[in-house]
This record gives sequence, structure tokens and C-alpha cells, in this order.
Amino acid sequence: MVDRGETGLWRYKRLIPSSEEHITLGEGCTPLVEIKDEGIILKLEYFSPTGSFKDRGAAVSVNRARRIGVKSIVEDSSGNAGIAAAAYAARAGIRARIYVPKDAPVAKRVLIRACGADVVECTTRKEASMRAVGELTEEDLYIGHTWDAFYIEGMKTVAFELFERDRIPEAVVAPVASGTLFLGLFKGFTELNEMGFIDRIPTFYAVQGEGCAPIYEAIHGAIQGIKRSSLADGLRIEEPPRKDEILNVIRKTHGDALTVNDDEIVEALKQLYKRGVIVEPTSATAYAAFKKLEGLKDVLIPMTGTGIKTIDRISSIFT
Amino acid sequence: MVDRGETGLWRYKRLIPSSEEHITLGEGCTPLVEIKDEGIILKLEYFSPTGSFKDRGAAVSVNRARRIGVKSIVEDSSGNAGIAAAAYAARAGIRARIYVPKDAPVAKRVLIRACGADVVECTTRKEASMRAVGELTEEDLYIGHTWDAFYIEGMKTVAFELFERDRIPEAVVAPVASGTLFLGLFKGFTELNEMGFIDRIPTFYAVQGEGCAPIYEAIHGAIQGIKRSSLADGLRIEEPPRKDEILNVIRKTHGDALTVNDDEIVEALKQLYKRGVIVEPTSATAYAAFKKLEGLKDVLIPMTGTGIKTIDRISSIFT
Repeated sequence: MVDRGETGLWRYKRLIPSSEEHITLGEGCTPLVEIKDEGIILKLEYFSPTGSFKDRGAAVSVNRARRIGVKSIVEDSSGNAGIAAAAYAARAGIRARIYVPKDAPVAKRVLIRACGADVVECTTRKEASMRAVGELTEEDLYIGHTWDAFYIEGMKTVAFELFERDRIPEAVVAPVASGTLFLGLFKGFTELNEMGFIDRIPTFYAVQGEGCAPIYEAIHGAIQGIKRSSLADGLRIEEPPRKDEILNVIRKTHGDALTVNDDEIVEALKQLYKRGVIVEPTSATAYAAFKKLEGLKDVLIPMTGTGIKTIDRISSIFT
Repeated sequence: MVDRGETGLWRYKRLIPSSEEHITLGEGCTPLVEIKDEGIILKLEYFSPTGSFKDRGAAVSVNRARRIGVKSIVEDSSGNAGIAAAAYAARAGIRARIYVPKDAPVAKRVLIRACGADVVECTTRKEASMRAVGELTEEDLYIGHTWDAFYIEGMKTVAFELFERDRIPEAVVAPVASGTLFLGLFKGFTELNEMGFIDRIPTFYAVQGEGCAPIYEAIHGAIQGIKRSSLADGLRIEEPPRKDEILNVIRKTHGDALTVNDDEIVEALKQLYKRGVIVEPTSATAYAAFKKLEGLKDVLIPMTGTGIKTIDRISSIFT
């Protein structure tokens, strides 16, 4: 299963389509930090080229674009996925056009431009998705992370890395917006199971912010009049295109969906930073949800992105 | 030489003093990205817990403090080293007091506080050093990175990682302030040589910003009236405590010292970002210097820290 001459997630290239020859920015093989008294395994996805787990997906999607000779890739994103796409396109020598909502953090737009990509500002996140697809030309390939099948092929390698370290968890508690990491992890464990390496799939818990929780509401019913979590803004996708697939993973693994509010996220952030784990608020949502679940042990919580990108949002919490 | 049951830089713990039992935040084993047409090997040190190479040193220094039962560690820093010390102290359950000059970036102070450390603001960088040492109590251990011998033990593991990947370079071009990475790399290659694993030590080139270049001036004579590089501010140490050792490394390996100015750093930054390598300006100094050297191939350039921490400084370059 492992290609020992390769590094990072390309160690698993035999299991990744269209990956034979590839460019890399060092993605994959992120560290595990175990907090044993709590029974949790943190997978530090902020050890990555642009500071988030999106790099795994962008690496595979952009490499595939390069392989088939595409001249320009198109992505829509409120931040992390846009930076990842721009960085890999830069490394691959491909043009990139990223559609972002106008309320996307300035820092994220600066990074996208710095990598040489064109930034198209849109009124809303939804408009960004619509225009990204609507304005495609013959030279473009749309690699929108919420849709692109190759994106998930990058994400699934997290499961392979856990297997290689002999740390297959009992459960996964992960934030869900469009669900690429959630679905990717499930695909990874499923492939390990099909290849006969593991005999059970972990239980999957999806975490969303209060006020924008389509997965939670599909299971537990709609909630009215709840204030939107502002700290979980990285999870604000009202209609995830792969909602049914996400629900299916929860059902199949006898998992659940949970919501967390800003107070819970703040408390979780504080506890993570007090352990030296510097993450963005979105990563803290999953730790906050884990705290509400009882009796779980051996739980994987992916730390999805660096807190360095979101300093402006966390500074009021810590000063 | 390698402990295969360990991960990150602890794979080399047999060669690191006081490292038998340790806490970790995932430091070490950073990716290599080769740019073959230029003959350079980039070692991506921003794949690290707090986003800079300082994590290697802080990991070893703080673990040693923990091992000998210290209750509180003290560090002085204008940024990266302070964040690294604060994060490892948090993980180790040790108090931390960090002395910073008042012009240190707000973002860096926020991160230090977020990890639960006390921040002591001083008028200048020099005052921070003086007070850090002058105000030590019985409970404190000073782990000042410019002095602490254990810090360099963390840095030397970069050389071991290159050896394990069979990528010992012909030359090293690295930014130098207090010189911990420079001296650590040299120590690592020297130990590899003494153990019989390699038969020559790479040639070492030290890079400094114009206007504050004590190593350059010690070799090439003082330069008067040159404007200070503002982008190389991470390298502003006027009197590095280990200046003689740094000069000795250059002499022994038949290397040299170079300076770069802001225009050269901006150009280098642009070229790195256009390859998807998102670094702070200090990392770009070394790439800028490499561009001025002729005829070198197989050159290691450490990418010392993430550009995400310095967005406010680079945004004017890219917009």
C-alpha cells in the first residue's frame, strides 16, 4: 500500500487516482498529538503548505488538472480552500481564478493574490459559487472543493496515515461545512476496510455551529430563532451539495450530528491554546462538541487549520 | 542513529541530551521541496507547531526544563521564539514569562498570551534581554534562545533529516540573527561527519539585512550610512552573543557572509509566493542572497517561518 520512495500523502499514490507524476508543496504526513487523560488524538492538519487541511484536497485536484493539461483552474471559497488552490496552481504553473465573498478576511485575499491568482469579489458566498461555475471558459477547469471528486482523494489519506501509525480511532468528531474532510476520512477508512487492513469503521460525529447546521437539522429537526455562531463562520454552508452522503456516513456508522455555540467554542479554544495547540475557531468546534459527548474514548479530532490566520478574531478572547 | 518508535525530531533522541521522556507538539521532520532548475532544496520549517524553526529549539529546551523539575521558564524575544517557548511551556504544564520589546507585532503578543504566558513589555529588544536575565527568581530557568545550549540541540536535527533523505547539500545559505539555526545546522553536519556518515561539511553562507549586519561587517569591514532593511527586522541583533562561533563556521567551511536590501527581499518574496511557498520576509532574505551568489548548486535554503504571521507587512507588496 505504501510507496516508500515518496513523501507526504504521495506515499499512498497507488491508491490516489491520477497521481503518478506530481508537484508537491510538502502536504500530508501531519503529526499526531495524543492527550491521553482525555482519550483524544489530535491530527495537526495545520502542518501544511498554506495552514489548513484543504491543502490535501487542492494538491490532488490541481495535480490532476496539471496532468490533463489544464491551463487555468477555478475555485470558489471564503478563504482556506482559495489559498490552497492558489498555492498549488502557482507551484504547478497553472493560472488560478478564485471567487470569494466580499466579507472574506483581507488576510486570506492577500495570500491568494500573493500566489499570483486572480481574485473575483462577489456579494455573497452563494454568488461566488454561482459565478465560478457560470463564468467558466474553455481553458478553465472548475475544481470547486465542495464538488470535485479528486479533492476527497486527498482527504482520505488522513485515514491511511492513522493506520500506518497504528492509531485507528473508535470515533471521529469533525467539523462539517461542505464535508470534504468528513467524507474523505470515511472513504479512507472504508478503503482500508475493503483491503482487509481494518475490521471496523469508526463512528462519525459531525459538528456544526448553532444557527447554520443543515446536517444537524436533517437529523434532529429545524431549530428556530437561534443566534448564529460567529466563531463557526468557516462552517457556514447552508446547503452542502453532498448533504445526503454526509447523512449516510452518520447513519452507517451509528454516529450523530451536534451543534456548538460561541461560548462553547471560546472555552474549547482556550483549553487548546493552554496546551500549546494554536488553531482556528473552526477546529475548536470539534473539541467543544467532544466535551459534550460522554463515554467516548480513542477519539480522532482533526485540527483543521492554524490559528495564526485568525489572530484578529481570537485577540479579543485572549486580551 | 534513528529511533523508529519515535516521530518528528525525537527520532534522533539518542543524539539529543536530556530527551529520553518528552512532550511534543509535532515538531521536526519538515518537508523538502526541491526546485531543480535552480539547484535549491527548500526545507519548510513553517510546518511546525507555531509556524517557525524556533519550535525545534524550544521543544528541546523546554523538555529539559521539565525534566529537571523547573516550575517557570523565562525567554526574551521579539516574536517567534517567544511564541515557541510559550506553546511548549503550556504543553509541559510549566509557567512562562516572555520579555518582548514594545514594538513587537501585536499578533505575536496575542499568541504568547493565548498560550497562557505572562508578557513583559520592554522599551527595546536589548532591555528585554537585560530584564529577562536580571529579574530571574529561584523558580525560573532562563532558556534564552541566543544562549541556551539545548536550543541548538533541537536545531541540529535539520541536518539529520537531510541525511536520512540522502540530500546532504553542497552549501547552506541561511539567515543569521543570533545564529541558532546556523550553528545548529553546523553542529548537526559535524556530528554526522564525526560518526562517519558524511565525509564533508557543506559550505556555510550567512545572510543579514543591510544596516544591521554584524557578521558581514566582521568579515568585510563596517559599512556606514546604509539604510536599515525594514523587511529583515527578524534579523536585527546587533551583538549576537555567539558571533565568534558563527564566524568560525564560515571560516572553517570556506563560506562567506552577504547582505540583502529591501528591494532584493521583495523580489525574492514575490518569486517564492509565485511558487506557492508562503514565507515571512526573513526566509526570503536567504533566497535573495542565493540569487547573488554564482555557480552554486545543491544549496539548502531553510524556509524559517510562515508568511501567515506577517500578512500585515507583506500586504502592501502584493496589492
